[in-house]
This record gives sequence, structure tokens and C-alpha cells, in this order.
Amino acid sequence: MNLTHGKVYTLADFVARFGGEVVGDVSTPVSQVASLENANADQISFFSGARYRQQLQNTAAGAIILGPKDREATNLPRIVCDNAYAYFAKVSTLLNPDVESEPGIHATAVVEDSAQIANSASIGAFVYIGKNATIGEQVVIAPGCYVGDNVVIGKAARLHPRVVVYHDCLVGERVILHSGVVIGADGFGLANEDGRWIKIPQIGRAIIGNDVEIGANTTVDRGAMEDTIIGEGVKLDNLIMVAHNVQIGAHSAMAGCVGIAGSAKIGSHCTIGGAGMVLGHLELADGVNVSAGTLITKSVSKPGTYTSAMPFSNHQDWLKNAAQLRHLDSLAEKIHKLEQKVNELERDKP
Amino acid sequence: MNLTHGKVYTLADFVARFGGEVVGDVSTPVSQVASLENANADQISFFSGARYRQQLQNTAAGAIILGPKDREATNLPRIVCDNAYAYFAKVSTLLNPDVESEPGIHATAVVEDSAQIANSASIGAFVYIGKNATIGEQVVIAPGCYVGDNVVIGKAARLHPRVVVYHDCLVGERVILHSGVVIGADGFGLANEDGRWIKIPQIGRAIIGNDVEIGANTTVDRGAMEDTIIGEGVKLDNLIMVAHNVQIGAHSAMAGCVGIAGSAKIGSHCTIGGAGMVLGHLELADGVNVSAGTLITKSVSKPGTYTSAMPFSNHQDWLKNAAQLRHLDSLAEKIHKLEQKVNELERDKP
Amino acid sequence: MNLTHGKVYTLADFVARFGGEVVGDVSTPVSQVASLENANADQISFFSGARYRQQLQNTAAGAIILGPKDREATNLPRIVCDNAYAYFAKVSTLLNPDVESEPGIHATAVVEDSAQIANSASIGAFVYIGKNATIGEQVVIAPGCYVGDNVVIGKAARLHPRVVVYHDCLVGERVILHSGVVIGADGFGLANEDGRWIKIPQIGRAIIGNDVEIGANTTVDRGAMEDTIIGEGVKLDNLIMVAHNVQIGAHSAMAGCVGIAGSAKIGSHCTIGGAGMVLGHLELADGVNVSAGTLITKSVSKPGTYTSAMPFSNHQDWLKNAAQLRHLDSLAEKIHKLEQKVNELERDKP
Repeated sequence: MNLTHGKVYTLADFVARFGGEVVGDVSTPVSQVASLENANADQISFFSGARYRQQLQNTAAGAIILGPKDREATNLPRIVCDNAYAYFAKVSTLLNPDVESEPGIHATAVVEDSAQIANSASIGAFVYIGKNATIGEQVVIAPGCYVGDNVVIGKAARLHPRVVVYHDCLVGERVILHSGVVIGADGFGLANEDGRWIKIPQIGRAIIGNDVEIGANTTVDRGAMEDTIIGEGVKLDNLIMVAHNVQIGAHSAMAGCVGIAGSAKIGSHCTIGGAGMVLGHLELADGVNVSAGTLITKSVSKPGTYTSAMPFSNHQDWLKNAAQLRHLDSLAEKIHKLEQKVNELERDKP
Repeated sequence: MNLTHGKVYTLADFVARFGGEVVGDVSTPVSQVASLENANADQISFFSGARYRQQLQNTAAGAIILGPKDREATNLPRIVCDNAYAYFAKVSTLLNPDVESEPGIHATAVVEDSAQIANSASIGAFVYIGKNATIGEQVVIAPGCYVGDNVVIGKAARLHPRVVVYHDCLVGERVILHSGVVIGADGFGLANEDGRWIKIPQIGRAIIGNDVEIGANTTVDRGAMEDTIIGEGVKLDNLIMVAHNVQIGAHSAMAGCVGIAGSAKIGSHCTIGGAGMVLGHLELADGVNVSAGTLITKSVSKPGTYTSAMPFSNHQDWLKNAAQLRHLDSLAEKIHKLEQKVNELERDKP
Repeated sequence: MNLTHGKVYTLADFVARFGGEVVGDVSTPVSQVASLENANADQISFFSGARYRQQLQNTAAGAIILGPKDREATNLPRIVCDNAYAYFAKVSTLLNPDVESEPGIHATAVVEDSAQIANSASIGAFVYIGKNATIGEQVVIAPGCYVGDNVVIGKAARLHPRVVVYHDCLVGERVILHSGVVIGADGFGLANEDGRWIKIPQIGRAIIGNDVEIGANTTVDRGAMEDTIIGEGVKLDNLIMVAHNVQIGAHSAMAGCVGIAGSAKIGSHCTIGGAGMVLGHLELADGVNVSAGTLITKSVSKPGTYTSAMPFSNHQDWLKNAAQLRHLDSLAEKIHKLEQKVNELERDKP
């Protein structure tokens, strides 16, 4: 099922806005995007390469977005452009605007007197806005959110229901925070004295750059003494843990269940696959890609892809291989001894 | 400690409802379930096999549920049945009914005019119900939940405190969603253009089948273009990440901290152990069991158990073995060379 | 940036409270803590060893906390004490007191009549307090929290915004629960009957000991029949999953993304690194340290450090090594055969 919004555009409308070239009828009407497999005649799809050629042949879509080298891959009305997937994203954004939220403060919201709320901001039911907080123009704060004292929420940011931003944190412009996100909780700072843990006050902030999106139930802790910093354009998926003092460079992206330990410094344009983990105080250069399920235990100074996943297998095979894993060192030792002996045998060969 | 509800049943009551055969006094009174180790005389326990024989000998329980082959394992009043653990579950459910929630809408709840709330539904404090949402009979929505526009909540579903269901999602009958669950947040859909990420609107829904239970702080994203679908009777533990477009077949179960990446298709009657991960676009056949801590990197077409966990060891031993892990390929090469040399030596043997 | 609170202390004030010896001007004023690198003249920092000697030379801090052996490592006014980091924690706590919350119940809170709220407790906006709940003196419950029926919250505990405590659970004195924490959701208890899962009512409680701190979005499930127990002084980071019936001994600490499966029993003074996992029903002795990313699959009876992480490498190298991992058993077999042949060759040597 695709949700629709009623408004209809033509291919001409798209190229007027986003560039590219129409091949075929420029007045082809489009009301929604869809996959090749499920599209209808009033929907536009995109073609991303040979793997989907069969689906392209069979599609009922009304129009296609594709790259220059695929220009003749279909006879359907089409838009030829350099980056078909990015173009598709823009078309979809045009067809699926955010639901508009009425400006104003819901009658049930609690806003402290010293908070400053822009006139065009929308503050939902059961929202709490703390002292001296500043809420920018066109900000949408959905029901049940908590915005602490002195927090600043930048222009056109959107907090989905039940987001928490602790005191003194900064949220940039156009930031999207999904439900359950917690920004600025205390980092895990502890000193041990005679076997008991003493809490170290976490007095830094969490600073979320412009155009960041953070997925459901992800947590970004505040800094211990300096700030935790999420760079511009960073995209974090769900259930990610960003510990205190972490810095994530601009335009990096991380899939679900990732963990970044305290004071790690991730470069810009990095990617981390699902459940990837980076230990504390490490540095990853710009352009590092960490594979899913990979644990990074040392700093990485060169761009490239890094992996540590153990290959899976049928449980019986795994049992046999795993048994040897516990003895790899002695296997290596055996090989070493064999090499010596074989060398001797060769030397002594008659 | 066991919480009790005051009502007392007899073994006769149980077999009248759930079948099975009583051996011993059918009027033995039972007010609660308990483990063999901690049961009192007015409590019933169950016996699941040889490992617990000692505990069965020593138990102070008033009655026991057990299988046909264990019929004579105790002299206590007992219920003999085919599936002792399932029988125990039913007895416990009878003894521990859900706390009844008063029908009606709490004075503090905010319900949009166009929402439809069944008369027998219970809407708690600080709940927000969006436009055109439909709340079924006997539904319980606990304090602080958010139900978006056009959402449908099926009959007798229960949303524990602070659940979020984004707009347009469907929640089946008798579904249980624990606190902090987020249904229908945007999937992680991004196109890259010149190093910057462009958001792809997520216009599918999340559809939660009948009799599904989802644990605390688990997230199920909405689909990118098609729907994310959680099949009937699926059970998800806490802190699980289900990405966009995922399909989970009926009666599959997943333990805590599991991650299912985008567009993966899990069969029915599958199980995934704690922290198991399935990469995107893969398919798992019906009846696949993934061990705890296992990363599935390829589709699995046959039922069975699959494992990838690296065995743990004392850190010093691990250091030695791990050092060899980075050189497995050269170890294999050395073995290959040794085989050649030894074959030559054998051939040349005088 | 460091947040400041305006109050200024001297080194003399600190040693009067916390012991230690001042070397240099005891009246040196201190308004905040800071790292060596970022400190100003009115801030105090600490020196933790040789690695930071250069930073100590260059620091602009007004005073330093250090250990006896580093007494002469700087000429700045300094406090010499046995445990510099713990001392620093205490100084920081003095300089950064919790923001005071006004006692009383916010006008928007919903408190059931039978609940007992201490006079000095602070109950925030949109908080729900259930029947017969007991809230101790100086407790702070921030906006949007849910406290279920019969819950007891001990003296001076602090629930940050949007915490949920299910019915009948106990929260100790001075406990800190961060936003999104869920205490006492149902454990993952299921019996299978003919391929369908039957829910087993979870009738135990979750009991959180005194001085426990739990990070954002962490979940601690209630027990199935007995209680889940978090011992005194335990510290849990964010996004941790503690399953039903788990027991965690006093003063253990766990980093983010850890999972502890059902009925596991963790000793006291244990540590578990980020994303470490412990399987169900296992026991870890006191003083066990589990490394980050390690899966514990057997009980551990001796203190020490245990590790299972697979070392990461460049993806190309990993591919080569991983290919061999699937054939470790046959590699070992080859080595065994080689050893036999070489022994024969040596024996037959002319």
C-alpha cells in the first residue's frame, strides 16, 4: 500500500525543479512513487541497474527515472538524469510532503515562562518545555516530548512523539528526531573507590548539527567535560548508542544497533553497518566503512572497508570449526614444527 | 515473591478447562504457580525432566503438572498432560488475569474528534489519539501512549505506557506492545548525492499481525514503499530493531537485541537468539534457527540451526589465538606447501 | 563548553571535605572542573599518569589533583591524594550539584488517591502515579514518567523524563534512572504448543538496589516467577537488556548495548564491555571482566578477563582469512595427517 496525498505532477514539473531530461510525454501525470514491481500507471519508479531489468520489462509504472546509460532500457516515458536514486528521493519528497502541523502551543502543553517559542512553531499535547529553552521557527514538537532547560531547537527541526532533550543541549536546523530518542542523558562516567563506583557529573552538552536525522530509541549522551558532537548531515538509524564525548564527522551514516564508545572520533563520510561497534578513544579517518557486525578495536587511519565478522555456518560445521578456534595458536605451532622437520628431511635427503 | 490475585482453583477446574488427567485429589486447591524450588502448599509447579528430579523430590508444592512418562515421578496430586509447559502457561494465565482497566477515556487524554474509540476501550492519562484513528473493543491504551492519525488498533490489544504508533500503521487483535515500543518510525532510506544524504520519504506502513507481542523499547520501522509486516503470533523481545520492508513470518520468535536489516524476509516458525543479526534483503526459510550472537550474511534456504559465534576464552589465550586469526590465510598456504613437500619426500623415498 | 553554577570553592574547602594534602596556595579559587587541555585559571583538573605529562606541562588550569608519586609533576597549586580520579569525581559533584527540583506535585500530574507521596518529593508534569505506590522523601520524578500500582521508589531517587516502572517493582534509594528506561516489563516467557507460542504470565518483580544508575533506554524485565534483582551500586549504561530472573551482584558495571539473557547470575564487582552478551542460565563469578563484543556461552567460575572478539582487518584480508575459517576443521585434519607422514618419514630416514 502507498499512502497518497492527492496532488498530481507531470514529468515536466519534475525536470523544471530538479533538472534532467524527459524522453517521451512530458505531460505524463504522476501522483506517487512506487517500486517497479508494484507501481500503477499514475506512479513513477526508478531503474537502478541490470539486476532489475526483468522488473523494468514487466512494470505497470507510468514513468521511470534512470541514468544516461539506461536511456533506452525502456519505452516508457522517462526522466534521464545523472543520479537516478537521488532524483527519485527528490521526486518522492515533493510528492510526500510532511503533514503540516498547526502553529501554536497545544492547550495541554507546559511551557515555562522564560522559554521562547517562535510563532510558527507547533508544540503538541503533553509537551514540556523547560526554562530559557528556545524553539525556532517552523519547529514541530510532537506530543509527549520533553525539552529541558536552556535547550535550543533550530529552525524547522522536527521532534516526533516522546523525544527527550536534556538541559543545555543544542539541536540544529532541520534536524529530525524519531520517537524515543534521548539526547543528552548522562554519559557513563565512573571512578572506582574501594570497589564502589562514584558518579562523575557529566557537564558537557550534546550538540546535534544541522540536517541530522536520528532513528527511534537511539541515545546520544552529553559530554563528560567537553561536548558530544554530531556533525552536519549525519544520519543515525534506530537503537544506536553514542557515548559521551564522541565526535561524528559530517555526512557519516550508521545503521541500526551500532555502538560508539566514549570519546571515539569518527571521521566524516564514514559508514558503519548494523551492530558495528567502535571502542572508546579510537579515531576513524574520513571515509572509513565499517562492515555490519564488526568490532573496531584500533584506530583506523586510512579510508577503506574494515570487517571482523565471523562467517556463519550450519551449527554442526560450526561446532567442528569452533573447536579448532580455541587451539589456533597450537595449530600454528604445529605447522611451525612441521616446517622445521620437513626442511631437515629435505636437507638430509640422500 | 509471587504476586497473588486471591482467587483459588482446584485441579478439577484445570482439567475441566484445559484437559489432562488428575492423579490424586482433584479438589487440591491452587492459588498460584511457582517453581519447584519456591512453591508453597497452595501453589502448583511443573516438572520438565530428569534435570529437576531432585527439586521435584524436595518441593513443597501442593500439585505438579507433568508429562505422561513422568506420571509416577511424584506422589503429589498431579495433572498428567501431553505438553506440561504449555499446560502450565494456561494455568498461570487463569491464575494471573490481566489487571482490568476501566473502560472510558481519561479526562487528561487528548482524542481528536474524528477518532473512533470503542465503548469498551480504556484510554489512559496523557494519551494522544490522532485523527481518524480507530480503537477496537476492549483495547487498553496505558498512560502516555501516542497513536497517530489513521492508525487502527485491533480488538483487545494492549499498549503499555509510552508506546508510540506512527500514522497509518495497523496493530492486530490481542497484540501486546510493551513500554517504549515504537511502531512505524521512518526507515533508514537515504540516497547519496555528492557526499550528502537525501532522505527518501518512507511511505509504507508497519502492520502488526494478530497475537503479536513486542518487548520494551523495540522498534519496527514503517516500509519505504511497501509495508513492513510482522506475521501473526510473532513474539519479539526487548530492544530489537526491525528495519523497513522486513517481513517476519507467522509464529517466529526473536530474543533481545536482535537486528533485522531492511527488506529481509524471515520465514515462519523461525527463532533468532539474543543479539542475532540478519543482513538486508536476505531470505530465511521457514524453521530456521539462528543462534545467539550470530550474523547471517547470506540467505538460508534450509531449516536448521545456524551459528557464527566466536568462542570466548581467557583473555591471554584469546590474544594468542587472535594473533593467528589474522594470518589464517598464510597458515593455510603453509599447510599446502608442506603437503607438497611431504608428498615429494614420500615419492623420493629410497 | 562547561556549564557553571556560580559557586566558588578553594583547595582548602576540598581537603576539609575530602581529605588529601594541598601543595601550594590553599586559597586557590576553583569554580569548575575541566580537562588539562581545556581548563582555565579558575578550574581544577586531574593528572592520571605519564601519558598526559605533556598536557600537564601546557595546562592553563588553576589547580591539579594528582597521586602521591606525581607530587612534583607540576608547580601548580595541587591536591595530593591516594585516588586522584575518585577525588576529582567528588570535587566535580560538589561543584555541580543536581538542579534542585521544587517539592510538590505538578498541577498536570495524575496521582491515584491511594498513592503515598512524601512531602519533599517532586512530581513533574504529565507524571502518572498508580494505586498504592509509595514515593519517598526527596524523590524527583521528571515529566512524563509512569509509576505503576504498588511501586515503591526509595528516598532521593531520581527518575529522568519518560521513565516507566511497571506495577509492583521496587526502586532503591538514590537510584538514578535515565530517560526511556523501562523497569519491570514482561520477560520473554513462552511455551510452544503445536507451533504457536503461549504467553507465560510474568509474576515476579524487578528490584533495583540502592545507588544503582541505569542509562537511557535500558530495559530491566520483571521476573517470570521469582524476581529480577539488580544489586546495590550497580551501574548500567544505555540500551542494555536485562532479561527476566537475572541477578546482578553489587557494584558490577556494564557498558552500552550489553545483553544479559534470562536467569543469568552475574557476580559482584564484575564488568562487561560494550555489546558484551551473556547467555541464559549462566553464572559469572565475582570479579569477572567480560571484554567488549564478547559472547559468554558457558559459566565462568574464576575471576579474570574473558574475550571472544574476532579481530577486524581490511576487508580484502578478512575475505581471505574468513574463507579459511569455514575450513578450520579440515585444516587441523591436514596438519594431523602431515604430522603422521613426517613422523613416518623421520622414522624411515636412512
